[in-house]
Amino acid sequence: MRGVERRKTRTVTVGGVPIGSGHPVVVQSMLKRRPDDVEGALADTARLAEEGCRLVRVAVPDEAALGPLGEFCRRSPLPVIADIHYDHRLAIGAVEAGVAKVRLNPGNLRERERVREVAAACRERGIPVRVGGNSGSIKRRDGTDDRSTAEALVDEVLAYCGMLEEFGVGDIIVSVKASDAATNAVVYREVARRSDYPLHLGLTATGPRDEGAMKSSVALGALLLEGIGDTVRVSLTADPLDEVRLTKDILRACGLLDDRPEVVSCPTCGRCEVGLAELSRMVEEVRAALAGRPGGLRVAVMGCVVNGPGEAAECDAGVAFGKGKAALFKGGRVVRVLPASEAVGALLQLLQEP
Amino acid sequence: MRGVERRKTRTVTVGGVPIGSGHPVVVQSMLKRRPDDVEGALADTARLAEEGCRLVRVAVPDEAALGPLGEFCRRSPLPVIADIHYDHRLAIGAVEAGVAKVRLNPGNLRERERVREVAAACRERGIPVRVGGNSGSIKRRDGTDDRSTAEALVDEVLAYCGMLEEFGVGDIIVSVKASDAATNAVVYREVARRSDYPLHLGLTATGPRDEGAMKSSVALGALLLEGIGDTVRVSLTADPLDEVRLTKDILRACGLLDDRPEVVSCPTCGRCEVGLAELSRMVEEVRAALAGRPGGLRVAVMGCVVNGPGEAAECDAGVAFGKGKAALFKGGRVVRVLPASEAVGALLQLLQEP
Repeated sequence: MRGVERRKTRTVTVGGVPIGSGHPVVVQSMLKRRPDDVEGALADTARLAEEGCRLVRVAVPDEAALGPLGEFCRRSPLPVIADIHYDHRLAIGAVEAGVAKVRLNPGNLRERERVREVAAACRERGIPVRVGGNSGSIKRRDGTDDRSTAEALVDEVLAYCGMLEEFGVGDIIVSVKASDAATNAVVYREVARRSDYPLHLGLTATGPRDEGAMKSSVALGALLLEGIGDTVRVSLTADPLDEVRLTKDILRACGLLDDRPEVVSCPTCGRCEVGLAELSRMVEEVRAALAGRPGGLRVAVMGCVVNGPGEAAECDAGVAFGKGKAALFKGGRVVRVLPASEAVGALLQLLQEP
Repeated sequence: MRGVERRKTRTVTVGGVPIGSGHPVVVQSMLKRRPDDVEGALADTARLAEEGCRLVRVAVPDEAALGPLGEFCRRSPLPVIADIHYDHRLAIGAVEAGVAKVRLNPGNLRERERVREVAAACRERGIPVRVGGNSGSIKRRDGTDDRSTAEALVDEVLAYCGMLEEFGVGDIIVSVKASDAATNAVVYREVARRSDYPLHLGLTATGPRDEGAMKSSVALGALLLEGIGDTVRVSLTADPLDEVRLTKDILRACGLLDDRPEVVSCPTCGRCEVGLAELSRMVEEVRAALAGRPGGLRVAVMGCVVNGPGEAAECDAGVAFGKGKAALFKGGRVVRVLPASEAVGALLQLLQEP
């Protein structure tokens, strides 16, 4: 009883990393510093890579950044994406410096002849483009309400993609970030419906760490559960490592990343023969015993017989407690009934078996 | 650019608290102890009420619980919901003890004549019923795959509602909890499509605190953003207060609860004229200054000019930093450009104005 059916997209490859519905959702992040600080940028990128990040983006704010960007690209352990605003010459310079993808903002770099020049540079080197629209930088239509602002964002982004296609660039990834979860869901769904571009999910201007994490979880989780989203960058006013950890947590919660065992447990209630403290302790014991094990394993620790056996049976293994006793489950069947005090030990032993 | 359009439902009133699309989403929780421990249950309920919880559920595991349940109902600061499994006599006893709603599980209390007796007791006292289906306690059909298990859960729950309606009970709230976000979304959407019952959202057997919180945020957020869900109970293997706090955080992230000012901020990047540490400090300063203020206020603290002015303009007030300077926004317009070091002070002053 799980599994998300991904929306079908074309595949766009960024520095050897394929992005699209035929491939796992790609985790990415963005540096908080300029590429001029090459050693700092490389150190940050190495930490991000170790945490599971697969692509790194960096702002290219001016021409002074282009030289160092070349060195950063050559030495970076991850493919580098250039974040470009306003100035098309920076995009062309970044492509020449060796970036693996260019992010353009249709809200501030839209002059047709300039986009044609950027497209030519990208086409020549086979560099994909992210068309990164953003509710904060869209050209506002006067006197419009919220609904039409959202529509304007989608229209603007898709028209921009059309222009790139006209200029021979079909390797396009799209984002349409808004700063609230409800609008974000609406605009992404609309782009998903109207195109087959892989989608870069994000929410803009989320806020401080905790609130930002919650807004991002809700906003991006909603889309991912619908099969929408091929690469994710969470934005937090916090360490980029936090962004990567949160992204992976969201993907796990959506069933899109299964890189470690999952422990499910009940909240406990007045029916439980074991209390909250005791059940929590057993859950932690099971979790600790499974640390370092690969994904593909789901273990239940349930406090009573109402949902316990059902949940435990849906898992690879589990225990459900009754009056002084516990049922041990494996592969959907009760394999033993034993005294409650022996349950976790027996479960851990069972999980050691091949 | 925000706002969720709720799915239209009938309204069901639980102990004076109306539940349905015409009313704010209701936060509820469940005690971890038996009602026999009346003083403990009352103390827990008082803490939950203070945290913003509006309904409290308690397990009624056996007849011994019924006497104390009566006292608990009389003294509880919140309407009490009885959680019933297996034994219809406990449901009838709970209604007589004075509960404001009865939760029945179609997976383990489905004998027609018994349900008729419960319905008669509820009808007589005007007590609504939650039909609480659960993937862990559904009657499994042999040899079925995941998809048909989900369908079976929805069919079972709606058939049960039909039976209650036949017995004269129309005050029905429905839940169909699964233990993974993807399945949960599918089953709730299906019930939403096929009925006008107010929905009680939850995810079952979520797991330990952090993973459980993430799974719940994703699973419930996805539905809430679609306008599905009229009351929420998050289940965590943790303190019930954590459940209530998380529920309120999810509702805020979905734009369904606006009980305090919202601060939006950017993640910072190489374009920023202010660093992450500095921006974080300013965000905290603004947050602290707004503590205790009511909702309906959205304030932006943005590090650069790319999305900054756009986001700041979408907010009631905000600042966006440029080279050594900052633009101060109010009601969508720049009201001042001032030295960066004076920006937060000016913003806070502006927020003091009526």
